Amino acid sequence: MSYFDDPDVSKAALVVIGNEILSGRTKDANAGWIAEKMTGHGVVLSEVRVVPDIEERIIEAVNALRAEVDYVFTTGGIGPTHDDITAACIAKALGLALERNAEALHVLEEYYGAEELTEPRKKMSEMPVGATLIANPVSGAPGFVAENVFVMAGVPRIMQAMLDEVMSTHMAAGKKVLSNTVSCELPESGVAAALGAVQEGHPEIDIGSYPHFHAGKLGLSIVLRAVDEAGLKAATEAVVDMIRECGGTPQPLGLQVQIDNF
Amino acid sequence: MSYFDDPDVSKAALVVIGNEILSGRTKDANAGWIAEKMTGHGVVLSEVRVVPDIEERIIEAVNALRAEVDYVFTTGGIGPTHDDITAACIAKALGLALERNAEALHVLEEYYGAEELTEPRKKMSEMPVGATLIANPVSGAPGFVAENVFVMAGVPRIMQAMLDEVMSTHMAAGKKVLSNTVSCELPESGVAAALGAVQEGHPEIDIGSYPHFHAGKLGLSIVLRAVDEAGLKAATEAVVDMIRECGGTPQPLGLQVQIDNF
Repeated sequence: MSYFDDPDVSKAALVVIGNEILSGRTKDANAGWIAEKMTGHGVVLSEVRVVPDIEERIIEAVNALRAEVDYVFTTGGIGPTHDDITAACIAKALGLALERNAEALHVLEEYYGAEELTEPRKKMSEMPVGATLIANPVSGAPGFVAENVFVMAGVPRIMQAMLDEVMSTHMAAGKKVLSNTVSCELPESGVAAALGAVQEGHPEIDIGSYPHFHAGKLGLSIVLRAVDEAGLKAATEAVVDMIRECGGTPQPLGLQVQIDNF
Repeated sequence: MSYFDDPDVSKAALVVIGNEILSGRTKDANAGWIAEKMTGHGVVLSEVRVVPDIEERIIEAVNALRAEVDYVFTTGGIGPTHDDITAACIAKALGLALERNAEALHVLEEYYGAEELTEPRKKMSEMPVGATLIANPVSGAPGFVAENVFVMAGVPRIMQAMLDEVMSTHMAAGKKVLSNTVSCELPESGVAAALGAVQEGHPEIDIGSYPHFHAGKLGLSIVLRAVDEAGLKAATEAVVDMIRECGGTPQPLGLQVQIDNF
């Protein structure tokens, strides 16, 4: 069983909302950031979808994913302008009314001052009924949690601060997927058959094979992932032996199971 | 009508296949690259999904998207090892048999030489029946086209070369979405109401508002997108006037419609 199918492993999904990502104008950096953080926190990121600023498309993605995973994150579309439609879409997706959240209004008033709290800024307090705030230490306007949907800003610095709060406040650290990487200088095709046999012998371990170039030399990283530490050790040992049998030099030579945060 | 809903505009979607992207070990750079190339080619990237190396998940994503768009790209999972399952998944998604493609076998034999064409390398010739090759000038093993699905490598340099061939050989340059960007130094909330009115007055133009920091100063880029050049010019003029009325200085001052490839 792959860790993706392990019912004891928490799962997350991400909906990146934004025409500007799909046009290529802005390069998304949030998906990779969230992926790393989830792995470190013991949560498996199971899917990412990038969708345009279109109500039906956002609702469809959020509803498809929130049925499948424990946590759905969204990034983008929570500012004061007409194209910031995320909060309204999440309310519709969850079948909840949209309201001006009193606590969010208070946060915005503290941040801008009562006189500068204009109508567009007040719009940033609109959230589904019953939402819980996610603080924004960078620029005031909060994100929110509604059911299992976590609505965060698209600007990476703000998103990162919000994610830290989400992880510490709303997400129990989960059963970690442990990983171990063994590298060698062999071409991928030189280990393919033997590596396939190792995978067959250790069906509960996810074994991936990633060729790379380092200093002009071809190399191969074999990445093993599993929740079970003993199983991971045994499979790592099998990979190390396999590389030697194929005429390669495994690096590192040790079999130590590491949590490498990837 | 947004250009996303314009039946005369060609649309594409991307399925990024790879546990290593979802774990955060590898940061995807292909989605942003493909997004920019599509915009430049006159094709709208309508959605991106990142899914794990799991057969059902790949098939589900490809089938959902190929029904919605003209072109579905996949990246990743076409090497010689057991975790390279993309070709087999695409065959299943399309209801086609998987075969060793004779032309692909020939390409691999030319690249490796007959003696070095081992079984794992021969595996890289497996494609759905009737597939057309996409050349790989970097490392030999070709991608392929089957129906409207374009299967490319995950390694960016290889993917980029494959995409160039796909665009020149398989994708007619489409009706371009034109864009224009007007910047100013106002805060987003300072233009929100007026900008919303401009959007209401020009419903066929997609208007996005993107705050940014440049040299420590807050600024705002308003990006207009549309297929219709005259409509785009009129909306741009309205945005320029609106910024002046809100007390800002629009940059650039001109109204020229540019194809800025974003």
